[in-house]
Amino acid sequence: MRWTWLNNQFVEEEKAVIGIHDLAIQRGYGIFDFFRTRNNKPLYLDDHLERFFHSATLMRLKPPQQKHELKAIIEQLIAKNNIPESGIKITLTGGYSTDAYTPATPNLIIQQQPVVFPKPEQYNKGLRLISHHYQRELPQAKSINYLMGVWMQEEVKNKGADDVLYYQNGIISELPRSNIFMITHEDILVTPVHNILHGVTRKHILQIAKNHFEIEERDISLDELYKAKEVFISSTTKKMLPVIEIDKNIIDGGIPGSCTALLFKEFRAFDEKESLK
Amino acid sequence: MRWTWLNNQFVEEEKAVIGIHDLAIQRGYGIFDFFRTRNNKPLYLDDHLERFFHSATLMRLKPPQQKHELKAIIEQLIAKNNIPESGIKITLTGGYSTDAYTPATPNLIIQQQPVVFPKPEQYNKGLRLISHHYQRELPQAKSINYLMGVWMQEEVKNKGADDVLYYQNGIISELPRSNIFMITHEDILVTPVHNILHGVTRKHILQIAKNHFEIEERDISLDELYKAKEVFISSTTKKMLPVIEIDKNIIDGGIPGSCTALLFKEFRAFDEKESLK
Repeated sequence: MRWTWLNNQFVEEEKAVIGIHDLAIQRGYGIFDFFRTRNNKPLYLDDHLERFFHSATLMRLKPPQQKHELKAIIEQLIAKNNIPESGIKITLTGGYSTDAYTPATPNLIIQQQPVVFPKPEQYNKGLRLISHHYQRELPQAKSINYLMGVWMQEEVKNKGADDVLYYQNGIISELPRSNIFMITHEDILVTPVHNILHGVTRKHILQIAKNHFEIEERDISLDELYKAKEVFISSTTKKMLPVIEIDKNIIDGGIPGSCTALLFKEFRAFDEKESLK
Repeated sequence: MRWTWLNNQFVEEEKAVIGIHDLAIQRGYGIFDFFRTRNNKPLYLDDHLERFFHSATLMRLKPPQQKHELKAIIEQLIAKNNIPESGIKITLTGGYSTDAYTPATPNLIIQQQPVVFPKPEQYNKGLRLISHHYQRELPQAKSINYLMGVWMQEEVKNKGADDVLYYQNGIISELPRSNIFMITHEDILVTPVHNILHGVTRKHILQIAKNHFEIEERDISLDELYKAKEVFISSTTKKMLPVIEIDKNIIDGGIPGSCTALLFKEFRAFDEKESLK
């Protein structure tokens, strides 16, 4: 049996329910964050909680608990569930709205589940992306609105791709659940900075990369991306994965590149260090 | 006590709950429709059910019931609740997704509640709108994603306005929950046709209006709208309301106009006729 935190108590996951008047169900309104545990230790929790509170502020929702209270709940949840390698998701909904439109006191859900990371084969195979014209609302908030990402799955599958890359006016931004990076032929690491969710893994990769590459955080056109030397994505659950094809344009001969490999190696070491802190 | 239909049974409204794994809560994924009852008779039910199934198809969700089954449930709900003047909302969620991303068997919710229509004073006062650059995803689907509309409420209030009008690339589309129309100085009724939700009230207004006005369904720029002779909006709960100000541009001297009044009179007669059918 797994436990979930709901508002002010632990409940069995299967009994964790929300009334239909919640603004998440009525209007798709809410925010969340998601982090990993390793050996029952939360990784980069401060980064994730900081972003959680930032998303809440941007979306004008007031979390019922403060940061230190959330930390205490998360600690208890980890102890009760004992899922050493897990993902923990903290969701804050729009709450029970009396007019089904105006946010009310939010509902808070903290769920934990086992997490599966990409296998080395997946890394070696690399990802195929298709691009799609779209821009998330309030991109710096990690809102629960994934309408486009969920909806695009069918097209992604039909086109033999693995995921979708959003762009607007020719400029790329992000994948539904990942950030994107490219290495230019001049060995510069470039990643979008506008209209994206600022990923925690993205932040750490930039931290690591500055010892090896010149870094540019700026707009990237689809055309520039197609011609990159290497491309990769980052996310909490995917960590880092190479991209070998975008809209049928083969990147770097279709084989994960050496710069990505170097960064991934360093990222794993960084991760190891964090988990031993 | 009010009853709600949940999947395959009637439950007390306060006990109508959804598990946290539903894709509405996890990813804001779902669709709905909303119609009125008058003297315990559903109005324009076929129009609304047709749009409900159309939204479901666009969003790749499969309603568990067919149209005639939904009609039978709605009939029972109306009889059980006995709220003669009401709004009934049918919501279809993304269902209990095992990976919190892929749609599953949807949950179906049918809620009924008393409905309050705008009073004559509100009609006479007219609406003040502010414009905002935004385009809904899959605009022809009535999805539950109202992130922008819900979020904009604070700005609308701070600017002393009543609602927000979306536009993109200078072309207007719709309000979060209403369609928009203008009457030109040449007495042509114009309303956007692209990138909008096709409202049932909008459809009936166009039907009525063709006896009185030349009609154009086409793109309208914000600039053209600012200079319109009359502007009004339509929705199931608001029916028709005049707009007297947009981004501080006063429309028609700030007084609801005669063409809008004529159409509203005819709309009420049309409504009356429907409810006696």
